[in-house]
Amino acid sequence: MPFRAPLEDFRFLFDHVVGFADIAATERFAEASPETVDAILSELGKLTEEIWAPLNRSGDLDPATLENGVVRTSKGFADGFRALAEGGWLGLSAGEEHGGMGLPLTLTSAMNDMLSASCLSLGLNPLLTQGQVEALEHHASDALKAIYLPKLISGEWTGTMNLTEPAAGSDVGALRSKAEPNGDGTYAISGQKIYISWGDHDFGGNVCHLVLARLPDGAPGTKGISLFMVPKYLPNEDGSLGDANSLRVVSLEHKMGLHGSPTAVMEYDGATGWLVGEEHKGMAAMFTMMNNARLGVGIQGIGAAEGAYQKALAFSLERKQGRTPLEGKGGTGTIVDHADVRRMLASMRADIFTARAIALSCAVALDMSTATGAPEWAARAAFLTPIAKAFGTETGMRVSEEGVQVHGGMGFIEETGAAQYYRDVRVTAIYEGTNGIQAMDLVARKMMDKGEAAMALIDEIEGFAETLRAEAPELAEPLWQSVETLREATEWMLAQGDLNERFAGSVPYLMGFARVLGGYFHLKAAQAEGGQGPRARLAEFYIRRLLPEHVGLLAHATVGTADLYALSVEDLSA
Amino acid sequence: MPFRAPLEDFRFLFDHVVGFADIAATERFAEASPETVDAILSELGKLTEEIWAPLNRSGDLDPATLENGVVRTSKGFADGFRALAEGGWLGLSAGEEHGGMGLPLTLTSAMNDMLSASCLSLGLNPLLTQGQVEALEHHASDALKAIYLPKLISGEWTGTMNLTEPAAGSDVGALRSKAEPNGDGTYAISGQKIYISWGDHDFGGNVCHLVLARLPDGAPGTKGISLFMVPKYLPNEDGSLGDANSLRVVSLEHKMGLHGSPTAVMEYDGATGWLVGEEHKGMAAMFTMMNNARLGVGIQGIGAAEGAYQKALAFSLERKQGRTPLEGKGGTGTIVDHADVRRMLASMRADIFTARAIALSCAVALDMSTATGAPEWAARAAFLTPIAKAFGTETGMRVSEEGVQVHGGMGFIEETGAAQYYRDVRVTAIYEGTNGIQAMDLVARKMMDKGEAAMALIDEIEGFAETLRAEAPELAEPLWQSVETLREATEWMLAQGDLNERFAGSVPYLMGFARVLGGYFHLKAAQAEGGQGPRARLAEFYIRRLLPEHVGLLAHATVGTADLYALSVEDLSA
Repeated sequence: MPFRAPLEDFRFLFDHVVGFADIAATERFAEASPETVDAILSELGKLTEEIWAPLNRSGDLDPATLENGVVRTSKGFADGFRALAEGGWLGLSAGEEHGGMGLPLTLTSAMNDMLSASCLSLGLNPLLTQGQVEALEHHASDALKAIYLPKLISGEWTGTMNLTEPAAGSDVGALRSKAEPNGDGTYAISGQKIYISWGDHDFGGNVCHLVLARLPDGAPGTKGISLFMVPKYLPNEDGSLGDANSLRVVSLEHKMGLHGSPTAVMEYDGATGWLVGEEHKGMAAMFTMMNNARLGVGIQGIGAAEGAYQKALAFSLERKQGRTPLEGKGGTGTIVDHADVRRMLASMRADIFTARAIALSCAVALDMSTATGAPEWAARAAFLTPIAKAFGTETGMRVSEEGVQVHGGMGFIEETGAAQYYRDVRVTAIYEGTNGIQAMDLVARKMMDKGEAAMALIDEIEGFAETLRAEAPELAEPLWQSVETLREATEWMLAQGDLNERFAGSVPYLMGFARVLGGYFHLKAAQAEGGQGPRARLAEFYIRRLLPEHVGLLAHATVGTADLYALSVEDLSA
Repeated sequence: MPFRAPLEDFRFLFDHVVGFADIAATERFAEASPETVDAILSELGKLTEEIWAPLNRSGDLDPATLENGVVRTSKGFADGFRALAEGGWLGLSAGEEHGGMGLPLTLTSAMNDMLSASCLSLGLNPLLTQGQVEALEHHASDALKAIYLPKLISGEWTGTMNLTEPAAGSDVGALRSKAEPNGDGTYAISGQKIYISWGDHDFGGNVCHLVLARLPDGAPGTKGISLFMVPKYLPNEDGSLGDANSLRVVSLEHKMGLHGSPTAVMEYDGATGWLVGEEHKGMAAMFTMMNNARLGVGIQGIGAAEGAYQKALAFSLERKQGRTPLEGKGGTGTIVDHADVRRMLASMRADIFTARAIALSCAVALDMSTATGAPEWAARAAFLTPIAKAFGTETGMRVSEEGVQVHGGMGFIEETGAAQYYRDVRVTAIYEGTNGIQAMDLVARKMMDKGEAAMALIDEIEGFAETLRAEAPELAEPLWQSVETLREATEWMLAQGDLNERFAGSVPYLMGFARVLGGYFHLKAAQAEGGQGPRARLAEFYIRRLLPEHVGLLAHATVGTADLYALSVEDLSA
């Protein structure tokens, strides 16, 4: 069975769970009518089903290679990218003044989900370009905007992010790349950057690198970092490609997965760069790009989960093994009727729903923030971003792992394709800030408001559970109980003045929060179906079987550091 | 840091947790004195550290290949195998009458752990040979024993298991391979078998295939299956290699991991075979081999986890990123001092301990059963086997996944080596009966005694928790609570006359049981240290942070089938 874009899921979530109508009701996004949304989703569905999905295996089997300093991409990738660009889809949410469609990020999120599900490695390219567009829109000078934005939005050029260096990964502030003023308004950028996704390709056009580097008078740490646009080719006044810049791809990494996405070591040797935003304020500018990218990476996890799920489901509908419990009772006769296989598939589907609802809620909050300027929406988006990233990618790992399991022995054979999802998605829990970094962000920066954003969400869930307690007690009561436990865990977090006490349980806290959010969104879906429908049945499954995981997670979340540091390095090494 | 055999862990578990002294106190295993055990563990530690560990990457980078019908194995593998054979280690637990050492399986389990940790793909070979030896010891005629056992025990020859066919995986009874009597006491075996690990190699000697096939008068299903010894070369009377048998390796699979282990498609074309055990009783004979192999595969998961853990720990002691909370307080300055990294490492270590204690307890029960013939020990071993297999391999997956995470971006780069554990170990949750099959075995066959074995274990844990309630309430009380919840879940299982009701939650039940067992074994370790020591500190970590997972798991375990089958195939496909 080939990939099928989950259009119904998006429509249902938009209409009944995440409140897309609120976005469409704003002046800013008045064009996002149901008809427009439908038409766009359908077009993107077609593109991903027909053009992108067939590329997925090609990317794995025919990895990007470096040949004489130039990256040769996987067979068909250039055409796939071109088809996306020609549809104008790269600029779906970009500003109209430079050629974008100005439509909600929520719609772009659904697009990224389908791109990731159909071909994760190629889908990373537009994700980076989208992030670069947003960073330039917010921080670049008008002159830079005029040169770069139209080309990035049209897909003529593509963008990358250059943060990491060998000694500066999670600790970005340790970077050593240097920027020296050239005296003509440009800068000479020197240094080595690693893990640069799509650092080069053969799609034509320019590769536009946003590079973090330190000016001579930059302070140590993150406060002394500035952001520069460093293009592969120096653009002429008319926008055409001029001389090659002093930068090169040193090598490509040999990775466990995502082979179709070239991961470059980049060398900048006095390359010409232009400042983006203010001097020494590079991290703030980069954060614009990273927040967008973090949500995008969470969605990569969900997309990969969708692809893995569809493959496993299709297999379970073909594979016959043993007598099933539904034999003679209208069953399929295939393994999908075995209780444990159906349990695995239902778990996968229930968590894809959860992760997607969280990610799309985050996108809706971003759009509402853009449209209304209300700080509550910005706070909601900021709070949900690390959850969307970490839970989305965790779901990618869990679902692709179960996808392999459903296939049995065939899951371990590469030709089946199940293993590719498992290998590809693994990096999403690492890049754009590891899931551990996301969780630290959640319990520290995202609670600097004294927990206001967290508690607003908790109150909302509790209020919803309250209203359903009489109507649907068997589902509303467990949700109510879970949100109370979450409230207590959140209060515990807020009471810890020493942030490290929070960090000792931040990952399970984030996962526990996601579990409770899942209960909320599943129950909303059930209610929208009047308690009778496929999503209501999935909600029952989720609430009875997966929601209870919050107990263990939130217990783990609130232990503090004492037991951790009691375990010495010697204890761990003994 | 190179691999270091975890000898201290084995010694501690033997002495203080799993009761190795009880084995040594039996007449049957009187030779297993502390000195002998120590000497053997040390020798095996040296072998795995010095000879096997350096082969691990070679197996991955230089996979086994099929060249003109013959398997060429990874560079160095033949020497590694030879070193193991020359030590006599293949026969560590084999009977002395054919050259074995007759020592406890518990000791072999520790060996398999180290072999798996140092080189999982090569370690699979002796595991299969051990299983074949055991099957022959129990079921083969004296004539067959005399020919095969000395050669298998010395490592001159190796063994394989041939169960799976394209349409017969978990459903072994669906197999189509045929056996026709030749009239001279031998049989002509025909059919295709897949996923035959170590189906051929270039170590020299014979490859001895135990093949399941159906005689002309064999009933359909598992009841009509017989077991045959089908060697690659027909042995001469004097034990030397005679003519090639009519069998061949058709192809090798291209797998996600375990590249050093050749996984063959085997074709038998009227190959000469000898009956092992009685006609139509092949499954019973195969089960002897499979039970041994299931425990062995669980231990593969633990070994892979050990290797992944050691690699991650070493990295965390070298890698510097950011200011750590222990700066100026005697910290290392490396990422091991970050709370979330230490939490990950402690989780990994705590679950390796849990899984190892379960597996070694299972081995001890097997040895006690052999030594005493007491049915309680056999029942204990039978009950623990699926838990040891599924939880051991689940631990392999979880720990290798976290091992990648600790490495950050480097974890996704193949050269680092962390990814190999993640890829290699994945199959262990599938082969020798998927973990889903293990869980069904646990709640069905292993509860056919009306739950006697389960309840005996539960009573033992509860009794232990009782005795410690006054002395160490903060750890004993949570264990007591958890075992009560487990008792309720077990009673729920036993009350379900329709086994499918049990199957709907069998995997989370098994995992929940393992969590409670972990509490028991950790607390035993803590008590042995008088509450003051590295294992007592690890026990506190486990009981406060990981034991609470039993709540969600056991809630999930006891929901039954109603919600599963309410979710129709259409619901799952919508």
